[in-house]
Amino acid sequence: MSSARNVTRFWEWGRKIICVGRNYADHAKELKNAIPKEPVLFLKPPSAYVKEGSPILVPQYSSNLHHEVELGVVIGKGGKAIPRTSAMDHVAGYALCLDMTARDIQDECKSKGLPWTLAKAFDTSCPVSEFVPKEKIPDPGNVRIWLKVNDQLRQDGSTSQMIFSIPYLISYISEIITLEEGDLILTGTPKGVSSVQEHDELLAGIEDILCMTFRVDRQ
Amino acid sequence: MSSARNVTRFWEWGRKIICVGRNYADHAKELKNAIPKEPVLFLKPPSAYVKEGSPILVPQYSSNLHHEVELGVVIGKGGKAIPRTSAMDHVAGYALCLDMTARDIQDECKSKGLPWTLAKAFDTSCPVSEFVPKEKIPDPGNVRIWLKVNDQLRQDGSTSQMIFSIPYLISYISEIITLEEGDLILTGTPKGVSSVQEHDELLAGIEDILCMTFRVDRQ
Ligand SMILES: [Mg+2]
Ligand SMILES: [Mg+2]
Ligand SMILES: [Mg+2]
Repeated sequence: MSSARNVTRFWEWGRKIICVGRNYADHAKELKNAIPKEPVLFLKPPSAYVKEGSPILVPQYSSNLHHEVELGVVIGKGGKAIPRTSAMDHVAGYALCLDMTARDIQDECKSKGLPWTLAKAFDTSCPVSEFVPKEKIPDPGNVRIWLKVNDQLRQDGSTSQMIFSIPYLISYISEIITLEEGDLILTGTPKGVSSVQEHDELLAGIEDILCMTFRVDRQ
Repeated sequence: MSSARNVTRFWEWGRKIICVGRNYADHAKELKNAIPKEPVLFLKPPSAYVKEGSPILVPQYSSNLHHEVELGVVIGKGGKAIPRTSAMDHVAGYALCLDMTARDIQDECKSKGLPWTLAKAFDTSCPVSEFVPKEKIPDPGNVRIWLKVNDQLRQDGSTSQMIFSIPYLISYISEIITLEEGDLILTGTPKGVSSVQEHDELLAGIEDILCMTFRVDRQ
């Protein structure tokens, strides 16, 4: 079956999306969260993937859908308890991702001690770009990611601001959850998250390496 | 690729495990949780699957791992916004499942408003039986599920005690998260959850239709 699987189309067959919350200090602060001592992990299902050409849908139950632009790390070689020193050998490449978040629902989940599923895992909650081969981003720990809503710049950060580095995250996650080929790790968002509305146009990029656009619609 | 996919081995290629919390009133009460007005959903990744012959591993960070025996519903035909009346057409069969839960970590996540990932999504957190074809359980809304630890009966409930029925859950979930072939829904646990230790032997069954055994080990 592995011959049928092409890592450049990981969203078609990859089985996990592992997201890291609060991995940029300035974003943790803007949401009034403490700086975490260890990575905050949550999951999206592969049904959350959406590609350019299809819209991001605001869930019917939310009236405050936020964009979070994030660098995604695509796993090329699975593993368990991967040492930090060899973590990058497990990376096939990258993707630009949006961690779409129903902020009103997330606030409710947080205050009630409930899982974040409704806030984070709904259909179209994970827009992703084309696959970016590893060679195109020689230093993923120092790359600019940015997002505009209707031509206004809202997020503009560098992955150098991450609290936990990509090798640290791969090692930490794989101690708990075995990584497999085609898995995607969302590495957290810099500051500037804000609400999107029906008909908004999102334009996001990794430096000038890649950009993607998504339109927002009501469900 | 679909020719290579056999739903009776859903754990090898299925992409989602959607779990329902607090779906039995007596279990909600034993954990001092309110009876939910709508299903509480959380996710496990497919890397959580473990089959008979391999042990359940207590995560290093937990000292209170609980068993929760649950009826699993295996999706045969995907869909979105599936009406309750046709929901059962999307079911291929069932599996007996354990929703292994690091209760100490879950309590911490709940009190801090954090996602439940560390408590619910670690490797081996989803032991599953063989696939049970739909025909073998003509009334999945009234079937006995039970679990013994070292020959002592700990859980013994009927799916007739579920707050939200299987058709209700399929319809509710698929409004938010598109269901795909090979997905698994864990429908919640009856009362009697309790701690397991290294070397414990778990025996669980669906009436006298099927049983499975798992040994507990330290990671
Ligand atoms: Mg995020
Ligand atoms: Mg979760
Ligand atoms: Mg459960």
